[in-house]
Amino acid sequence: MKKHFLITAGPTHEPLDPVRYLTNRSSGKMGYALAGAAAHEGHRVTLISGPCELDVPTGVDFIPVETAAEMYEAVKRYIGKSDIAIFAAAVADYRPAHVPDQKIKKTGDTLTIEFIKNPDILGSAREVFGYQGTLIGFAAETENVEKNARVKLQKKGCDFVVANDVSRKDIGFDSSENEVALIFAEHTEPLPKADKYQLSLDIIERALAI
Amino acid sequence: MKKHFLITAGPTHEPLDPVRYLTNRSSGKMGYALAGAAAHEGHRVTLISGPCELDVPTGVDFIPVETAAEMYEAVKRYIGKSDIAIFAAAVADYRPAHVPDQKIKKTGDTLTIEFIKNPDILGSAREVFGYQGTLIGFAAETENVEKNARVKLQKKGCDFVVANDVSRKDIGFDSSENEVALIFAEHTEPLPKADKYQLSLDIIERALAI
Repeated sequence: MKKHFLITAGPTHEPLDPVRYLTNRSSGKMGYALAGAAAHEGHRVTLISGPCELDVPTGVDFIPVETAAEMYEAVKRYIGKSDIAIFAAAVADYRPAHVPDQKIKKTGDTLTIEFIKNPDILGSAREVFGYQGTLIGFAAETENVEKNARVKLQKKGCDFVVANDVSRKDIGFDSSENEVALIFAEHTEPLPKADKYQLSLDIIERALAI
Repeated sequence: MKKHFLITAGPTHEPLDPVRYLTNRSSGKMGYALAGAAAHEGHRVTLISGPCELDVPTGVDFIPVETAAEMYEAVKRYIGKSDIAIFAAAVADYRPAHVPDQKIKKTGDTLTIEFIKNPDILGSAREVFGYQGTLIGFAAETENVEKNARVKLQKKGCDFVVANDVSRKDIGFDSSENEVALIFAEHTEPLPKADKYQLSLDIIERALAI
């Protein structure tokens, strides 16, 4: 049966001033591959994406955003219509507390910037948005990958979490390949290293089986 | 006569940890257009570029870098061989003072990060690298554009500075068009709004005339 997927992708940009911003490493390739694969399988797809340079997959409803706050608002607006939500975006956890209208001039030898927490989009799905569908998170970790991912699964109410070790240089981020493990509440399913499109097909299959 | 151009382009990425980084808005289009135009005119070109998604122009020696510190080292190494140096990169002025090996976990509601000044690449050309060739800087400003650009020209020992007002939404950054003014010590030459390749030809012509 055809489903409606909501997929987030890419980084977010958190402006410090009109020219500088904080962001996360993310090419958007994993989220775009998921969106393309789901659409190709005949599902309806809403893709909410931070800034990235990729072509929007054919047949996808595309919602471009810049900041985590904008992504939060877009997810809040669209998630209720979806059956399966996959949060593949690398959302910036923090944003600068104060954003001046003009470029900060480099007067001092040091610069201290206070950051405040961004809204937790994945964590809001169940508790704030009241989402009842299948919920899949991503965990990019550099240590204790499986343990951190399972904590995320439980805290956020996910059906499973796609975990990857971003300390490895051969996979992830800008690569077109990735090696991930699917973290369920009671077990872990490692997937073989594969290109992101093949991984997308596997993830979509597991999501549809829930 | 054919010359050797050194051109910097793109943003730099300043890591906060293995997944987060601070950067500047820059598509790299202006620097790549300059490099492509100079090479097309038959000049030798060394292009030192921060991370961007553009195709490297044909016939250009390409030196990819990530951080401002890496760009500084690359410019230091190659500038002595060039006749004309054009610094179009949007170099991050500051980098985090401490960069942990592992991803920062989002424990607190706020996060305070201390930044330290990056080396001033343009400002080092004359004073540190002893560069005697033609030196051209870029100034991206949001206010007092001409005044700030002329201060930069004088402090850094440039022959001219290409100034643009990045508060305007219709030009600059991701746009393929730009409207700039060339700031010389004694006068200002506004160039008409044009695509970045045409502007590149104008800038190269002025540089060759010095």
